Amino acid sequence: MQKRARVLIDCDDAKGLVYKISKVFYDRDLNIDNNREFVDKEHSRFFMRTIVTGLFDIDELKDELKKVVPKDAQIRVIEPKDKKIILMVTKESHALGDILVRYEAGELGAEIVSVIGNHEVLRPLVERFDIPFIYIPADGLSREEHEAKVMEEIDKHTFDYIVLAKYMRILNPTFVKAYAYKIINIHHSFLPAFIGANPYKQAYERGVKIIGATAHYVTNDLDEGPIIAQDVIPVTHRFSWRDMQNAGRDGEKIVLSRALSLVLNDRVFVNGNKTVIF
Amino acid sequence: MQKRARVLIDCDDAKGLVYKISKVFYDRDLNIDNNREFVDKEHSRFFMRTIVTGLFDIDELKDELKKVVPKDAQIRVIEPKDKKIILMVTKESHALGDILVRYEAGELGAEIVSVIGNHEVLRPLVERFDIPFIYIPADGLSREEHEAKVMEEIDKHTFDYIVLAKYMRILNPTFVKAYAYKIINIHHSFLPAFIGANPYKQAYERGVKIIGATAHYVTNDLDEGPIIAQDVIPVTHRFSWRDMQNAGRDGEKIVLSRALSLVLNDRVFVNGNKTVIF
Amino acid sequence: MQKRARVLIDCDDAKGLVYKISKVFYDRDLNIDNNREFVDKEHSRFFMRTIVTGLFDIDELKDELKKVVPKDAQIRVIEPKDKKIILMVTKESHALGDILVRYEAGELGAEIVSVIGNHEVLRPLVERFDIPFIYIPADGLSREEHEAKVMEEIDKHTFDYIVLAKYMRILNPTFVKAYAYKIINIHHSFLPAFIGANPYKQAYERGVKIIGATAHYVTNDLDEGPIIAQDVIPVTHRFSWRDMQNAGRDGEKIVLSRALSLVLNDRVFVNGNKTVIF
Amino acid sequence: MQKRARVLIDCDDAKGLVYKISKVFYDRDLNIDNNREFVDKEHSRFFMRTIVTGLFDIDELKDELKKVVPKDAQIRVIEPKDKKIILMVTKESHALGDILVRYEAGELGAEIVSVIGNHEVLRPLVERFDIPFIYIPADGLSREEHEAKVMEEIDKHTFDYIVLAKYMRILNPTFVKAYAYKIINIHHSFLPAFIGANPYKQAYERGVKIIGATAHYVTNDLDEGPIIAQDVIPVTHRFSWRDMQNAGRDGEKIVLSRALSLVLNDRVFVNGNKTVIF
Repeated sequence: MQKRARVLIDCDDAKGLVYKISKVFYDRDLNIDNNREFVDKEHSRFFMRTIVTGLFDIDELKDELKKVVPKDAQIRVIEPKDKKIILMVTKESHALGDILVRYEAGELGAEIVSVIGNHEVLRPLVERFDIPFIYIPADGLSREEHEAKVMEEIDKHTFDYIVLAKYMRILNPTFVKAYAYKIINIHHSFLPAFIGANPYKQAYERGVKIIGATAHYVTNDLDEGPIIAQDVIPVTHRFSWRDMQNAGRDGEKIVLSRALSLVLNDRVFVNGNKTVIF
Repeated sequence: MQKRARVLIDCDDAKGLVYKISKVFYDRDLNIDNNREFVDKEHSRFFMRTIVTGLFDIDELKDELKKVVPKDAQIRVIEPKDKKIILMVTKESHALGDILVRYEAGELGAEIVSVIGNHEVLRPLVERFDIPFIYIPADGLSREEHEAKVMEEIDKHTFDYIVLAKYMRILNPTFVKAYAYKIINIHHSFLPAFIGANPYKQAYERGVKIIGATAHYVTNDLDEGPIIAQDVIPVTHRFSWRDMQNAGRDGEKIVLSRALSLVLNDRVFVNGNKTVIF
Repeated sequence: MQKRARVLIDCDDAKGLVYKISKVFYDRDLNIDNNREFVDKEHSRFFMRTIVTGLFDIDELKDELKKVVPKDAQIRVIEPKDKKIILMVTKESHALGDILVRYEAGELGAEIVSVIGNHEVLRPLVERFDIPFIYIPADGLSREEHEAKVMEEIDKHTFDYIVLAKYMRILNPTFVKAYAYKIINIHHSFLPAFIGANPYKQAYERGVKIIGATAHYVTNDLDEGPIIAQDVIPVTHRFSWRDMQNAGRDGEKIVLSRALSLVLNDRVFVNGNKTVIF
Repeated sequence: MQKRARVLIDCDDAKGLVYKISKVFYDRDLNIDNNREFVDKEHSRFFMRTIVTGLFDIDELKDELKKVVPKDAQIRVIEPKDKKIILMVTKESHALGDILVRYEAGELGAEIVSVIGNHEVLRPLVERFDIPFIYIPADGLSREEHEAKVMEEIDKHTFDYIVLAKYMRILNPTFVKAYAYKIINIHHSFLPAFIGANPYKQAYERGVKIIGATAHYVTNDLDEGPIIAQDVIPVTHRFSWRDMQNAGRDGEKIVLSRALSLVLNDRVFVNGNKTVIF
C-alpha cells in the first residue's frame, strides 16, 4: 500500500552517505518529496531528513538503511500522524491558550491527552475545550513528593512529548531523566541571558532594549538544554518589568508553538547540546 | 590536482535525481562538503547545489552529469574565485561605501573593475579606494544616448555582475536585455509596496509603521525582477519622509550587500520570477 | 473623589499649548502620570495624551481645557474602564482565539458583547467561552441585504469598537460610514503590498522573502484606512502559499491584538489617513 | 539673534515640572519644536528633552530653568553643532568603515579628530579619508603603560566622545574614570548574554538561534555599562562561529552607528545603569 514516511538518520559522517541512502530509496522505487542534509564538521556528524512516498514496509526499509550507514547510526522511519502530548502549566494562560486554540482548529498536529497544573486556576480554560485537567498541588509536599505524583499521572498515558507551557517549578534530575528529550520548555528570556527566576525583572534592571523567549529541550541543567527556537521583542525605557512581561508573553507563546510544530513534524535533531532543524 | 567546485544544477524534476547525481560524485571519489536540493512542485523543477572536492576535470564532470539529468538541465561547475563587478551609482554613498569597505577588508569576494556615475559627486569616495570612477553625465542626452555611452564603458570590461548601488535612473529594455540576470538592484522599499519614484515619500504618505528594502535582479519591468533579499525597519508617526529615508539607508546597504554575497557565492538560482537561495 | 483619566487633545498647532494645557492641570492640583505630545508639522496639527490623577469633574475639566486650546480642538477625557467590542468572523479561528484567550485571562481590557459570523464554523469555539455567537449567513442575500441584517444585530448593542477578526467579506460604504473609525481590521499582508484577495497567493507568486500583517481602521476604500500596527515574518522559497498562510497567521493575530490593545487604551489618534500612537 | 537649542533636564520628580518648565519657554516667547518627557517611577526621576527656537541667551535660559526645578537638576542647553569624536580600533574595519563613510557623506554629525589603533592594519583605510591614524602598539608594555600612552594622545584633543569601534582590549578603571560617560563601545553579543571574550564562539557553542550586538557606555565593569542600542540577527545550525562573526558584523556596525547618532544628537540620558532615549 502507498505510504508516506519521514526518514531521519543521524550518524558519524562518512563518504558517500547521500549516494548510499538515496540508492536505497531509488532501488525500492520510492519518491523523494523533500530531502535535507547537514554535516556538523566540528563533530563529523551527518544528519539527513527525507520524505519518501511509495510502497514499503517500515521495518524492512530501516533494515536496508542500516546496511549502508555507519554502525552508530540512529535511523527513524516515522509515518506522519498526530502525536500525543501532555501539557504542564501553572497560572499563566497565554502559552496554554495558544496551544488549545490551535488544537481546536485542527492545526496543532497533536492530541492533548492531559493537562497537569500545580495550581487550579487554569482548570476552567482547559475544561472549556473538553480536555481533562489534573490538579496536583505542591502544598505541603517536598519537590520529590510532588514530582512523584506528577510522574504517576504522566505514566498513566502513552505520549510523545511533555510540554511545559509556563510551568513555573524547577524539575529534578530524576524527573528530567525519566523523560529524556521528551520535555519541551519555554523560557521567558533570550537564553543564555537571564537564566533563572524572573527574567523580565532581570531584563528591566539591566536596561536592555530587546527582550526574548527561548523554547528548548529540558535537560538536567536549568535553562540549559538544546535550543529549538528563539525570538525577540523590542522594548524601551518606558517599559516597567510588568510591561516587559506582558509584551514578552506574545513572544513566548509564538516561540513555544513554533518549536512544538517543529518537534511534532520530526524536523528537529538533537546534536549534543544543540539542535539541527530542517 | 585537488580541486573544489560549486556544482549547480537546475532541471525538470525527475525520479532519482539526487541518487543519480550523487552517484556521479561517488563514482569519481569526490567529497561532498555541502549539498542542498529543492523541488518547486508547482513547476516540477529541481534545483541542487553541491560543494565537491577531489580530483576532477570541470568539463569532464559536466559531461558526466549531463548524462544523468534531463535534457533541459542547466549545469554549472564553478571554481570559487573572486568575481568581477561593475558598480553604477548616482549621488548617495551609503550602498557604495558599504561595498568599498568590504572590498578593502578583502571580504567582498569580488574585484570592482569600475564605478560608473551619472553624477560626479561620488568620485572622491571611489578614488580614495584607488578604483577608477567613470563619469558619464546624462545632461543633454536622451536616455538611449546616455545608456549607449554607459554600455560602451561596460563593454570594455570582462565582468560577472553589474550592481546598481543606488543608481537612480530607469534602465531601458535594451540595456537590461544586454545583461540579462547580471544586473542587481537595491530598491528602497519593501517590494511590491511603493514601486516607482520616491518610495519613502509614498511610505510616509501612507502612514506605514514599517519600511523596507529589496535587492533583486533587474528585468524589463521596473522593480519587478526576482527578489534576492529583503529587510525591514520599524518607523513611527514621528518620522518625516526624510527621517524614513535616513533610517532606510541602513536597511538598503545591508540588504544589497547580503544579496551580493549570495550572488557572488553562487547561492542563488533564478526560478521564473522568483529565486531559490541555498 | 480621587480619579484617574486619560486626556486626549488634538487641534491645530499653536504657541504655548503644552504650557497652557499643563497649567490647567497644575491649577487644579492634578498629577500628571504620563504625558506625550506630537506635532505633525506638515499639517500643523498638535496631539497630546496625558494621564491625570486627582480630584476633578470630567465635564468641568473639559470646559477648562476648551478655553485654552484652538476652537477646532477635539478634547476627550476618558476614565479607564473596559470598553465593549463586537467581533465579526468568518471561518479562521486564530485571531478570534487569541482575543478569547486574552479575554478569559482578564487581559483584553474589553468586554466582548457579541460575535457575529457569516459562517457557523466558529460557533463552538465562541460558545466554549460563554459568549453569544450570532450566525448571519449571506447565502441568497445581496451584500446590502446581508449587511442590513448584520447592522440590525450590531445596533442592538452599546459598543465602542467592531473588530474584524478575519471577517472575509468586503464591507459597503454604508456599513463603514455607520461606524466611522470604530471598525478595526486585520489585513493579511504588509499593506500597501498585496491589496485585495488572497494576499498570500500574491506574495507567493511575487516571490517575496518577507510576508506581513497590517491592522488598520476600516474606511471606505478597501484596505486603505489608517494603519495602527504592522509586523513581518521571514519566508523562503520553500514556502508554498499555504505555508505562508500558516506562518502568517501568527503575525496576524499578534498584530491585531496589539492594535486592539492600543485602541482600547486610547493610545491611538487618527490623523487624516495616518495614526499617531502614544 | 534667532537660535535653536536642545534643552535636556533631569531631576527628582516633582509636581508641575512640565508646567513650570514650559512656562519658562512660554514667558520668553520661545517656540517648542519637539518635547518629550519621561518619569522613572521606580526612582522618582524626571527626564525632559525639548527643542526650543527663538531669541535667548543660553546662560540666562539655564538660570531661569534652575529657578523652577529641584536643586539636584542637571540642566543642559546645547546648540546643535558637530561634536568631536576620537575613534579607537584594533584590526576589524567594518564598524570603523561605516563611520568613515557616514563622515565622508556629511551624515555623521561629528568631526573625527583622531583614530587610535593598537595595531597598524587599519592605517591605510583611515588615511584614505585624510584622517590622522595614531598607532600605539601595546607590545612589551603593561596594560597601564599602554593606556597611559593612549591617554596622552587623547588628552591632546578637545573632544566629546571616544568611540570604541571594535577596540579589542579591556580598559582599566583609571582610563574609564578619566572619561566617564564619554566612552561608547560596541559589544559583539546581545548583552548580557556572552559577556567577555569571543562571544560568537560562545554563541556557537550554546547553539543559539539568534545572535546580537549591543552598544553601551563603558563603565568600570566589563560589558556592564548602560545600554544604548541593541539588535539581533537570526542564525541556524549551518553557521560556524566564523559565519556568526561575519553575519554579526552587519549588526555591530549598524547598532554602533545608531547609538552614536543618538548620543551625538543629545537624545540619550544616563539613568543609573540604564538609558532614557528620546
